[in-house]
Amino acid sequence: MTTTIIGTGLIGCSLANRLKETGMAERIIGVDNNRHNLEDALRLGWADEAMDLQPALEAAQLVILAVPVDVAVGLLPTILDNISTQVVMDVGSTKQKIVETVKAHPNRKRFVATHPMWGTEKSGPTAVVRDAFKGQVAVICDAVGSAPTALAQVEALYDVIGMKRVYMNPANHDIHAAYVSHISHIASFALSLTVLEKEKEEDAIFELASGGFESTVRLAKSDPAMWVPIFMQNRDNVLDVLNEHIAQLRKFKSCLEKENYEYLNELIVNANKIKRILK
Amino acid sequence: MTTTIIGTGLIGCSLANRLKETGMAERIIGVDNNRHNLEDALRLGWADEAMDLQPALEAAQLVILAVPVDVAVGLLPTILDNISTQVVMDVGSTKQKIVETVKAHPNRKRFVATHPMWGTEKSGPTAVVRDAFKGQVAVICDAVGSAPTALAQVEALYDVIGMKRVYMNPANHDIHAAYVSHISHIASFALSLTVLEKEKEEDAIFELASGGFESTVRLAKSDPAMWVPIFMQNRDNVLDVLNEHIAQLRKFKSCLEKENYEYLNELIVNANKIKRILK
Repeated sequence: MTTTIIGTGLIGCSLANRLKETGMAERIIGVDNNRHNLEDALRLGWADEAMDLQPALEAAQLVILAVPVDVAVGLLPTILDNISTQVVMDVGSTKQKIVETVKAHPNRKRFVATHPMWGTEKSGPTAVVRDAFKGQVAVICDAVGSAPTALAQVEALYDVIGMKRVYMNPANHDIHAAYVSHISHIASFALSLTVLEKEKEEDAIFELASGGFESTVRLAKSDPAMWVPIFMQNRDNVLDVLNEHIAQLRKFKSCLEKENYEYLNELIVNANKIKRILK
Repeated sequence: MTTTIIGTGLIGCSLANRLKETGMAERIIGVDNNRHNLEDALRLGWADEAMDLQPALEAAQLVILAVPVDVAVGLLPTILDNISTQVVMDVGSTKQKIVETVKAHPNRKRFVATHPMWGTEKSGPTAVVRDAFKGQVAVICDAVGSAPTALAQVEALYDVIGMKRVYMNPANHDIHAAYVSHISHIASFALSLTVLEKEKEEDAIFELASGGFESTVRLAKSDPAMWVPIFMQNRDNVLDVLNEHIAQLRKFKSCLEKENYEYLNELIVNANKIKRILK
């Protein structure tokens, strides 16, 4: 199968690698306005050749759209205008907006809206992770909007690369994504800013930062070009969770201010309940 | 060297393991009011024998105090009352209170105040990590208060287990620890409460939680018996950093409310600067 990957960043190239490895794709065509990423993708072997969008769509059986969610929403109608029997899937972190955008498109049925829940704080073809996606969840949204053959092809792809499929409507996906992914990124960005603001001795951060700090602040290295459009498209859900998060932090503040250590203990005991869910 | 470890939890037992491995200690005596932990420590071979406090102090050349910081402050004067030539070190996450507590003690010079900056969210002897401490920083506080021979012994210990030594006064330690460790824990506890509060479908958290969420919420599994006393002893510094953190989160909230995505982008670009410090 010839597969065109639009967007040769971390996700596009990590997918390309797994598709080649598993024999799911024999030939990968890379498309990217970012010449630097495209050249890296070719040099590192994630893509076999580079093409412009139009010929790349014509040459492919499967088209994977792996660009920031604002670019995806702009580009998907054009892609659907220019395909016939190809299957098109996206891999974006928000799903309501993109599904709405192509709802009435005559080729809607060739499209499958997905979100493979894997990523790192790094970007670009040089950040590819070999065992990417394995064991993680791939959400498929509004599956009834896709042709059964198109859906089956995308399901087979996720099965082959070892992901667990979950089906959800786009609105629910975006709510859950705000809880389990988007708020973590905002918390981490804010934590980085807090430390950079308060700790003027950068050497001390560098020297003293322990594993705990590194793991909570890791996501703060994430690319704004990817994340601003996600927060924009999922604004209402993110605001809702962010308000709750600030309210929770205020409880900790109030405990310390009032030296109410019994309630502080209770808050931590309750926070520990995440152990029930995440081992 | 016979070493007595008071507190056979994660830190005490991980240290015991490294001291045995490196030949720094031939015999480890475990002391703990928690019979369950003490039995696990013996069963798993982290301690060679269990004793009560008094005989354990008498039998040792080196005494390591690895208990929650409130217990440490209560216990250290008694320990110093009952030693002669032994060296005593603590490994607590706050340093001002403990150094103050024994400032005027006649045996102050036998004590070395330290904080090896390593840990995990887990607790107890069963959570021991084999390569613990390696490559991380050990902070030594108020070194001038310790006898040169006592200090040299503790320095040798940290060298042998592969830690980098950093010297700091206790007040500065506690400020830096609030920035690079304590605030991360509060952020993570609050994030866990946020998600548990908002996401009533626990199955969805479990299924959808990706690596990003797991890394930011990992510390929320940490033991309140350890952390409440840390926040209590470092209250002023933690409050100061927590206020800053809430202020930073409010900036993200305001950007979303006002749909000011340029400023949101700028915040993330600034947060990315943590890359300069943490690779």
